Amino acid sequence: MPDPVQAISVPERTLMGPGPSNCPPSVLTAMAQPTVGHLDPWFVERMNEVQAMLRAVMRTENRLTLPISATGSAGMETCLVNLIEPGDRCVVGVNGVFGQRMSDIVQRAGGELVRVEAPWGRPLDSADIEAAVKAGPTKLVAVVHAETSTGVLQPLEEVSRIAREHGALFVVDAVTSLGGHAVLVDEWGIDACYSGTQKCLSVPPGLAPVSFSDRAVEALRARKTKVQSWYLDLNMICSYWGEDRVYHHTAPINMIYALHEGLRLILGEGLEARWERHRRNHELLKSGLAELGMELLPKAEDSLWTLNAVRLPEGVDDLPARKALLVRFGLEVGGGLGDLKGKIWRVGLMGHNSTERNVTLFLSAARAVL
Amino acid sequence: MPDPVQAISVPERTLMGPGPSNCPPSVLTAMAQPTVGHLDPWFVERMNEVQAMLRAVMRTENRLTLPISATGSAGMETCLVNLIEPGDRCVVGVNGVFGQRMSDIVQRAGGELVRVEAPWGRPLDSADIEAAVKAGPTKLVAVVHAETSTGVLQPLEEVSRIAREHGALFVVDAVTSLGGHAVLVDEWGIDACYSGTQKCLSVPPGLAPVSFSDRAVEALRARKTKVQSWYLDLNMICSYWGEDRVYHHTAPINMIYALHEGLRLILGEGLEARWERHRRNHELLKSGLAELGMELLPKAEDSLWTLNAVRLPEGVDDLPARKALLVRFGLEVGGGLGDLKGKIWRVGLMGHNSTERNVTLFLSAARAVL
Repeated sequence: MPDPVQAISVPERTLMGPGPSNCPPSVLTAMAQPTVGHLDPWFVERMNEVQAMLRAVMRTENRLTLPISATGSAGMETCLVNLIEPGDRCVVGVNGVFGQRMSDIVQRAGGELVRVEAPWGRPLDSADIEAAVKAGPTKLVAVVHAETSTGVLQPLEEVSRIAREHGALFVVDAVTSLGGHAVLVDEWGIDACYSGTQKCLSVPPGLAPVSFSDRAVEALRARKTKVQSWYLDLNMICSYWGEDRVYHHTAPINMIYALHEGLRLILGEGLEARWERHRRNHELLKSGLAELGMELLPKAEDSLWTLNAVRLPEGVDDLPARKALLVRFGLEVGGGLGDLKGKIWRVGLMGHNSTERNVTLFLSAARAVL
Repeated sequence: MPDPVQAISVPERTLMGPGPSNCPPSVLTAMAQPTVGHLDPWFVERMNEVQAMLRAVMRTENRLTLPISATGSAGMETCLVNLIEPGDRCVVGVNGVFGQRMSDIVQRAGGELVRVEAPWGRPLDSADIEAAVKAGPTKLVAVVHAETSTGVLQPLEEVSRIAREHGALFVVDAVTSLGGHAVLVDEWGIDACYSGTQKCLSVPPGLAPVSFSDRAVEALRARKTKVQSWYLDLNMICSYWGEDRVYHHTAPINMIYALHEGLRLILGEGLEARWERHRRNHELLKSGLAELGMELLPKAEDSLWTLNAVRLPEGVDDLPARKALLVRFGLEVGGGLGDLKGKIWRVGLMGHNSTERNVTLFLSAARAVL
């Protein structure tokens, strides 16, 4: 440790990896406002506004809609550990890292894990999910809407129908879709949905919005066992975010300021306009990649707009090329995970960062370093 | 929800409750710097500095010293769920809300809970702890150093000796002491210590520093079962904070900027000077209270310097009086919890906020409203 340690002086970066993405200046400014108490009457009103705006962005009337005080993965854990009791049969779709992560958490929560797999880079087949659900009484079906490790968009409506027909709860990971793709919680019958702030909401990492339907809340209330996590126990968290304002833990006040501003900007732009912007810039990137002789890992119809899994041309050395992007252009893109390491780049066009400028910057920089 | 929701405009507050406390301006400024990626080489160096500075502030050489990506209570949960396996006998000291919270988490983790109690407002008796530890093979002994609900300081050295003599791990809650009172992790033989950023470190809420001794790390490595929480699993978190930098979850980048600056300021002041400042302002408050005919709940020798549990005079109506402090003076103090509701105020003099100015402000304002 140098003595004394110098104050931070942040390098300029354009964050086009799998998240975090750059935040609008007013989000950073909001976050730097003085901290107030977590039970301050002024702050409680801002909490209500955050909840109302989250409901609007998630397209839901769910009363239980709030940000968990930790990052997106804690949102995943929150949804699963609040719904799963030991022995509950859980059907989990696995076609990338985040489906694997859900499987891991299901097992830690004592659930009976039933994995439904698809190759990385392909969506899940709803017939496979239906077969798995039919094979036994199922507590929940969980899938990843936007698989950040592969760039694949999972259609949700058919999976939702299957879950509902068989009395199972439908859990959706919307970490990389919320704010970039349509996530229609109520219309699509999603019972538990979670996201993160640092992707298409363009707020720093640190909060995980979650929403529970009435069916999910009933399952929570009907538990015979305590939720295994105290920190993520929604029964208690709701008492703080609900009308009682019972102290549970000290909320991350300044992160909530940032989320407040981020949501305000999203609703100011309009959700449909924002989704369309993400689609348009994704198409622009795809055209540019084609000119460079590059293509996406997923098929066109399965591709996310928010996170583009770009196949690396033969002979390109992943790490030095990404390092050159960072050093020469201040541009961050993500590498592949697991079997895709060294084979793809993950190029984010998320929220504030989904712009024609960034598409052009990436294409020009990639041309220079490849 | 008003349409559109207005941007936040934070009221001026002096935070003299049980936390959060006000942050120095440079901490807020650091937090508002642009977000970078969680694997950015520049950020990784700042992570190393944060760890080195945390070790200095916690007075430890423990390699496993890092901030958990959630608030202080998640630090408590992290320490307990990483050490406890089902059936492990855990002796927990309970003389306030936070000992109760530890007990709750021990049970959720499947531990065998042995409670050692003391009246609220009194420290635990080490003879009681020794008797409990002797009564059966004990995995860990856990106590709260600074009980935020009662203002009591728990001496630790004798409890540490008891734990060590009987082969138990020693777990300490230093949420309201770290940065205000001496917390000597190595010298006092603490095996797992956790804190929060929003008290005497004067950083916004959102991170929980933890430190594990080699003995605690050995217990973690020797587990036969997986840690029940994926998000708080230190085996995986260490791979990110260690040399491998394996992605686990996206760290709350901007909160880590804030912690970096907060720790820098603390080390710049000097730990001994900071503890002495907290002692001095606590004494000043105590003298002023005596002049007002008021006193503290704990005995003088048991009282925290950081959080003062002030008995309310007979006939004072708690809520209206605290509301008057907030409305007329922008001054927040905390109410009592549990049986102490309506009977005490919790007056924080933490970190940046432990000043003669704040003592004087509180005493004058209290005189005006009582």
